[in-house]
Order: sequence, then structure tokens, then C-alpha cells
Amino acid sequence: MHDGDPGPQVLVDRASREAASTDWSGHRPAGLPDGVVRARSTEDVVAVLRRATAERTPVVTRGAGTGLAGAASATTGELVLDVSGMDRVLDLRVDDQVAVVEPGVLVADLDAAAAEHGLMYAPDPASAALASVGGSIATNAGGLRCAKHGATREAVLGLRVVLADGRVLRTGRATTKGVAGYDLTALLVGSEGTLGVVVEATLRLRPRPRQQATTSAFFADVAAAARAAVAVTRAGVQPAVLELVDAATLEAVDAARGTDLRARGAALLLAQTDGEGAAAEAEAVLAAVSAEALEAETTTDPARAAELMTARREALPALQRLGQAVIEDVAVPRSRLADAVTGVEEVSRRTGVRIAVFAHAGDGNLHPVLVVPEGEDVLSGAPWDAACQVFALAQRLGGTLTGEHGVGLLKRAWLREELGDVSMDVHAAVKAAFDPLGILNPGKAVVDG
Amino acid sequence: MHDGDPGPQVLVDRASREAASTDWSGHRPAGLPDGVVRARSTEDVVAVLRRATAERTPVVTRGAGTGLAGAASATTGELVLDVSGMDRVLDLRVDDQVAVVEPGVLVADLDAAAAEHGLMYAPDPASAALASVGGSIATNAGGLRCAKHGATREAVLGLRVVLADGRVLRTGRATTKGVAGYDLTALLVGSEGTLGVVVEATLRLRPRPRQQATTSAFFADVAAAARAAVAVTRAGVQPAVLELVDAATLEAVDAARGTDLRARGAALLLAQTDGEGAAAEAEAVLAAVSAEALEAETTTDPARAAELMTARREALPALQRLGQAVIEDVAVPRSRLADAVTGVEEVSRRTGVRIAVFAHAGDGNLHPVLVVPEGEDVLSGAPWDAACQVFALAQRLGGTLTGEHGVGLLKRAWLREELGDVSMDVHAAVKAAFDPLGILNPGKAVVDG
Repeated sequence: MHDGDPGPQVLVDRASREAASTDWSGHRPAGLPDGVVRARSTEDVVAVLRRATAERTPVVTRGAGTGLAGAASATTGELVLDVSGMDRVLDLRVDDQVAVVEPGVLVADLDAAAAEHGLMYAPDPASAALASVGGSIATNAGGLRCAKHGATREAVLGLRVVLADGRVLRTGRATTKGVAGYDLTALLVGSEGTLGVVVEATLRLRPRPRQQATTSAFFADVAAAARAAVAVTRAGVQPAVLELVDAATLEAVDAARGTDLRARGAALLLAQTDGEGAAAEAEAVLAAVSAEALEAETTTDPARAAELMTARREALPALQRLGQAVIEDVAVPRSRLADAVTGVEEVSRRTGVRIAVFAHAGDGNLHPVLVVPEGEDVLSGAPWDAACQVFALAQRLGGTLTGEHGVGLLKRAWLREELGDVSMDVHAAVKAAFDPLGILNPGKAVVDG
Repeated sequence: MHDGDPGPQVLVDRASREAASTDWSGHRPAGLPDGVVRARSTEDVVAVLRRATAERTPVVTRGAGTGLAGAASATTGELVLDVSGMDRVLDLRVDDQVAVVEPGVLVADLDAAAAEHGLMYAPDPASAALASVGGSIATNAGGLRCAKHGATREAVLGLRVVLADGRVLRTGRATTKGVAGYDLTALLVGSEGTLGVVVEATLRLRPRPRQQATTSAFFADVAAAARAAVAVTRAGVQPAVLELVDAATLEAVDAARGTDLRARGAALLLAQTDGEGAAAEAEAVLAAVSAEALEAETTTDPARAAELMTARREALPALQRLGQAVIEDVAVPRSRLADAVTGVEEVSRRTGVRIAVFAHAGDGNLHPVLVVPEGEDVLSGAPWDAACQVFALAQRLGGTLTGEHGVGLLKRAWLREELGDVSMDVHAAVKAAFDPLGILNPGKAVVDG
């Protein structure tokens, strides 16, 4: 693309190219992208992709850059298509419980707009305040409350997508149900920028629960906490939030906040129930965990609830004080949660890499956080070896190497092992059906690393 | 396929071919399929598809044959692959809330197996007692309680699928969350036998709600009932079941059952809330509908609840006493429900075709039931004209021509209008990526009719 040509402007200054070259994964590409286009409209995106197709230019679509797997990393020879400026809530239809948004809207901003009408946008990745809806669609982001209220896929009813050659595809619908044609919407959710560029999303909102109860329970070890999480499931309760926090994380929070969490137990389970049955469900949670808990309490007081949730809310900032924090996101069947957490502890011992764990226990999704001294490369040597052992552990337990962050660049080496040869072939065929020239985020997400 | 060759036996007697030639749609193919294979194992399915690929034989996969759009219709030159005999529940892991089943398991049987452990299989199409899990996956079946608990897509975690050329593809996972690779699972759900043959499904179970409350309210007209349904939504309540029944349906039920429903109002709204907050939510429902209701009541007594639900449960059998009942399934944004129901009434008046309506009001999914005299062709003349006007109405209101039954053969003529040219091209490319020879259920679901 050159000055004087139609279409949006390409920024080629070093600062813009550096700022657009990576995400929060810790990955540093070998070079810088050739340029950055800040799209303001569907027409801008169409112009960029038409030109990219004509010139065979690889395009890396970029939202807020909060990804954790390197999917938005861009290097020499690649053009960054930044859609973060397309950030309008176009429509919010209260009675239909539907929002229509551009991809650059921040997740928390959308949820706040919904809250004004007694609704919520359910997916709530930890990065919600900074992450864009487009990026969360690209990764099928989850979050704390998705065990009950669904991940991003469950919230996306329809998409407007610019294909690699500039054609504009509409998928899905504005209705809750619909089965005309293939579910291209779900296929695009989680495709990490490799199939098309989302320029508009029709999203499902849900009633915002007006009651909430929070339960906190400490345990002698993480296995007991994991057993308690299974006991909650067995009791027939579906908490909106069910988080497990391990001893290493509790210690880090204590160090950062002056709390005494670790003295009260070596593992913490936090549950939030919501809706009209919130208090009754919290009683059931309390009963389910009491067999093994060292201490436990339930509250419907928002201030006390916020105190109880501190250990989870402050977990990552507390760990980040200790070094570079690399957040993994393996998932296992719920019944294997204890095996997974103790397995991660063994990996930590074996490799000498400090690993703390907190987990969305409600859906078996663990966040092992590798804490690596500042300056050390997190993607090689002992840290990377430890991460790989964690991936292998998850797969051995019948789980997956990524529950909600995506494959990006960093997990490609493990993808074939998880999906198998036939699936890899089908992925290549689907990719070719959408992007025959392979210009959309090449080398990411669905190829061997 | 010939006797003496390896692979499962092909039935070629006329009775078998006739029995396997259509579904519940009313469609009668011009001829009979050439043969029927009753598969008992994945190996059988692989053998059939390898041979079919070698011989370019079109294959129509068949479950229980309860489809309503003709997707399982088969005619001369086609082979029917009947998987209804693959009907084992292979595993039911209570703590993981996961079931692994073969495709021939009946939906209600799976739900009953889950119920023994305090769990439920949420999708509950009206045909659940007779419909197979495989067929419900092929159509992404919904049902009464999917507004709260999700349709089939939300219940399918992973699939084992035989591709057109006999390769075996595994998709998805056994964990609640997972984003490694494209969501091929969701792509296959609702693909109506055109992308592969499901031979095993890993399904998500949910806690079976132990409390339930049922609310019944009569209204002076259907518009008032639809407004009341919106008022329930506005109150922030998410009922598991929210059904609207129109005057024509009430009259049919009265005629069949000797009830006095029509005398009490011209439209009925039935709501079921469930979970620990069921009673409190029912109070909120009652408050929300009371502004317009002629009479309303709420009960937590199961016997009384069953009485109240009679009007909905007996709706279809009652209508079937009056003639051939052709069940459509358009969906509209919830706020357009009143417009949709009154629009269908106008179509009925205009065309002279008797049309009764009941609707999943919770998700805007209407079942206009065309009642056609026995012997009359339901797929031509005035009945078909009326159906087409109903499809056009739904699309005009921002909805879809099929909320949960699928496109099959019967709705293909309306598909391009709904999806658009770009989407039709992408559908063709995806179809070719899976089935380059076009042998899987050719001419169905994703092509112009």
C-alpha cells in the first residue's frame, strides 16, 4: 500500500510498528511489521484486505493487544490491521436482550452499557477492562462466570466479517435460536484472526442477577479444596463463580496486601451463586464444602464479598510483583482438578520454576502462573520446559492445552498432539476454504509450530 | 456394495427401502433409495463411506427418522446409512457431568439415564421420546427448556465423526472449556448429515433442577400475551419454559380434551421457573403478567403443574386430530413475537389455510402449525403458499425461517434469501472442504432448492 492510493493510511513509523508488534504473551517477534493500518470502518477493512489479496500481503488483525498466546504478534513482511478504533456500541435492544457492537468496544464497557438496563454481557475475562470484544471473539474468551453463564461463543449470535478477499460475510442472526445453514458464527469464534476480520458482532445479553451470595472456604491442601469443588457439583449447585486458589498464590497475596490468608489454609475455594436462589444455593455450597473445610463462611453483604474475593482478584497483580508472570490456561475434566493442581506442583519442583495456580474450578480450567525473574526469557529454557510439562500433564489427564486463551504462536507445537492428524488436515481444508492464499494471520493457531 | 464384499449388509427389500425413504416432514421422495445399511459400529460406517467414496454413491444418514424438514429423505440412486442401531450410552461420568453416547440413543433415554444421577440432558425437542441424539445433533434441536438451559449445540462438547472418505475425525474435548483449533464441533452440529457421520458424542449434562414452579395466565388476545412475555423478560427473569398458545390451539385442545381453555381467554402463556429460586421467580413472573392477564395462577404442586401444561403438551396431538399437521418453526427477535403471531393469523385468513400457533416465547421461536385436510398435498398449492408466506414474514421481521428443525429439503428455496450470496459461496466451500465429492446427503440443507 502506498500514499496516494485509496484506502486508509498506513503508519510506518517505528513507534507505531513496535506498539503493534506483540501482545501480553511475552512473545517478541524477530522483526517489526511493515506497517499498521488503523481501520475506522468496514470500508477501511475491505480496502485493506482487497489490497492485501492483490499483493499477497500477510495481515495480522489486532484489537486491544491483550492476548496471551501471541496470536497478534506481527513481524517483518506483515501488515497489522488495527480495528481497536472501531469502538461503537451500534445498538442495544433491551427487550431482545441483544447488543450490536463494533469489534473495538472493550468488554467491560459493553457490560457496563448492558448494566444500565439490568442486563449483563456474560463473558468476563480477567482483562475485561482492557480487552476488546473483537479479541475476545477471536479467542472465545471465558472468564470467571462462564461456568454458569457461558463463554464468548454462547454470547455471539451473529457476525459481520470481512473475508480475505474483501467480500463481506454475514453469519448468524439476531434471534436466540436459528439453524439455517452451518454455524459459521461458532466456527469464526475462536479462530484467532485466521478466517476473517470481524467488523460487527450481534451479541446476546442476559438478565443481570440481582442477588448474589459469596462463600469462602479454606482447606489443609489443594486436593481437599478440589474435592470440595466436586462436592459442590455433586450437590447439584451451579455457582456462577467457583475459583480455587493455591498456597503459592495465597502467599503472594499476603505479601502484597498484608493479609493472613496462607495462615488460614493451604488452599482457598471461592464460590459465588447468583439469581433469586443465590442465598439458598450458597447454603448448599457451604454444606457441600464443610466436610473438609478448615473454616468457611457465606455472605450476601457486597462489602464482605469483595473482601473475600480479594485473594482471587489480587492473585495476578500479587504474582506480578515477584517477577514476570506467564499465565497458562490448561483445562481438565472437573474430576481431575486435584490431579492437575498437584501435577503442576510436581512440575514446579522438578523444573525449579516457581508456579502458582488459581483455577476456574467450576469448569476445570487452571491458570498455572509461571513466575520468572525479570529479564529471563520466558519462552525458552526452564520456564518453557515447565510450560510444556504442564501442557503434557493436561493432555494426559484428558484435558486441553488451552481452555480460553487460544493457541496463537506459543502453543502450536502441541496442537497436533491434541487434535490428531485427521483434524489437522480438516483444519487446513477449512482454512483454505476461507483464505485460499493464506494471508490472514499466517502461521498462527491452526498450524504446526 | 455387493454380497460377499466386506462391510455391513445392505437391505434391498422394498419394505426396508420404503421405511427409510422419508421422515416426519410430509415429504415423499419421487423414488426409493437403492438400499439401507444398518450400521452397528464405527467400523461399519467407515466401510460404507469408503465404498461410497470409491463408487461415488450418495449416502443419506438416518437416525430415528423424526426430522421435520426432509433432511433424511432418500430416493433412487441413494444409499441410506441407518445408525439407529448404534444406541449405547458408553459412559456417564457423574462428577464431570459428561455422557459419551452413540448416535442412536434416544434423547429421552439419555435424559432418563442422567436423571438417575440428579443430572439432566437439557435439549428436549417435543419428539424427545422418539428422536435420536444423532438426529438432534444433525439439526441442533432445541425444545422447551433451551431458552434457559441451551440447545443441542451448547450440550455437545465433542464428536467422533466419520468423514466422507472414511477417515475418522475427533472434534472437541471432554472438558467444559477448550479453544485448541477451530470449533469443528459446532460446525458439525446442525449440518444435517452433509459434512460427516456422527458415530459418538461427548455431551454435557447439567444439574437437574430440584425445584420447579409453573405459572399459567390467560389473555384477551395474542398480542397481550406476547406483551406479557416481554414483560417477563423485562423483569429480569429467565424461565426454563415460556410458552405461548394461541386461540386456534386452545380450541383444538378443548375439542380433544373437553377442557374450557378458550372460554378463559384467547391466548395462554405458560411459564416454568426452576432451581433454588423457582418460587421467587414465579412470583416475579406472576407480577409481570398480571397487568394484562384475565386470570393467572402459580403452583409448585407437580400434579397441578401437569394440568396447567396440558394445553401445551396436548397441542400437537389435538391439532393432528383435525387433519395433517405441518409444523413450521420460524424464529423472530423476542420483541417481534406479537407481530409474528398476528402476521401468521393474517396469512391464515389470506390463504384460507387453517394455522394454529404455539411458540417458545422465551426465545422467539414460533411453531405455526398448518392443519391440512387428510389426502391433500401439504407441500404444494395453498398449504405450501401459506408456509412460504410464513417464512417471508419471519425474515421480514428480522428472524429466520428455521429456529430448530433445519433446512433439509423443504426450506432450501428460502435459504439464499436469508443467508445471502457470499454466505452461500462460503457454505459451498466448507462443504467441499469436508466432502469434495459431494456424496453426503447431497442436495440438502446448504444448497439452493
